[in-house]
Amino acid sequence: MPRESNLKRREPTTTFEAPELMFAELDGLLGYLLRRAQGAMHRDFMAAVSDFELTQKQAAALWLIQANGGVSQVEVAAALGMDRATMMAVTDRLEDRGFIIRKRSSVDRRRQELYLTPSGQSTLKKCKARIAEHEEKFREMFTASELAALLEALKKFQTLS
Amino acid sequence: MPRESNLKRREPTTTFEAPELMFAELDGLLGYLLRRAQGAMHRDFMAAVSDFELTQKQAAALWLIQANGGVSQVEVAAALGMDRATMMAVTDRLEDRGFIIRKRSSVDRRRQELYLTPSGQSTLKKCKARIAEHEEKFREMFTASELAALLEALKKFQTLS
Repeated sequence: MPRESNLKRREPTTTFEAPELMFAELDGLLGYLLRRAQGAMHRDFMAAVSDFELTQKQAAALWLIQANGGVSQVEVAAALGMDRATMMAVTDRLEDRGFIIRKRSSVDRRRQELYLTPSGQSTLKKCKARIAEHEEKFREMFTASELAALLEALKKFQTLS
Repeated sequence: MPRESNLKRREPTTTFEAPELMFAELDGLLGYLLRRAQGAMHRDFMAAVSDFELTQKQAAALWLIQANGGVSQVEVAAALGMDRATMMAVTDRLEDRGFIIRKRSSVDRRRQELYLTPSGQSTLKKCKARIAEHEEKFREMFTASELAALLEALKKFQTLS
């Protein structure tokens, strides 16, 4: 069983009058708390970038392609931990919207290079400003040392996947 | 812009030979790291409970219904931060599989009470054992105080949603 338990009833956090249910240690589970935290941040992200209609995955792909012009789809997928089908859907969508272009490599004809278009550049720039505000809203709940510890802790999860 | 930056290149963590891409501070974003951490833990959760074919949401709903026999669908949805449509899909699925039953309240005829069936009880019991092992795998990456700080930090996110 988990080492830490939390039998205390949870404070209602929604505007809906939530009854105080017994959580029976569910809300002491790392997996449960991580999923709820991600849910909260995901909802806020979607609201923050709603003008651009970009998902977290699409925004992350745009971000990486900008920083690594000419990168391949497989490389972006590996760096972001996405499977190939998901990455294919992401790049197709970004290409359809005119944010990226695929170019065949002049060195290796089998390789397709990804680049941001001017429209992709401009959208990402505006999007990054919104993401910075969204980030700040969550970051400011923590002291600098709490935040540093949290970021380090979150990085460790990827070593187990 | 985010206060903390992380320009250092990321270590490849997959078996695929990932090229070292420039992350341009993407991997210093709380939102990005939280999504990746949740992705890693979600994949491991699904593998851990694969015998039972339960999603995180279905398992959490079973868990809460067990701890609060007679609870209503709306109450479980509020406690777990799910919208009504999602909760409806979850309870329909759990009922179809014979894990829960809906019973009309004898006090308030408009209210439907949820209970675990013996099959739901037995499945949840086995599932909890697997979840405990899955939790432990991630918990043991941290010292007791690191873990306590991480759980506290994750709880704070719900106050912003």
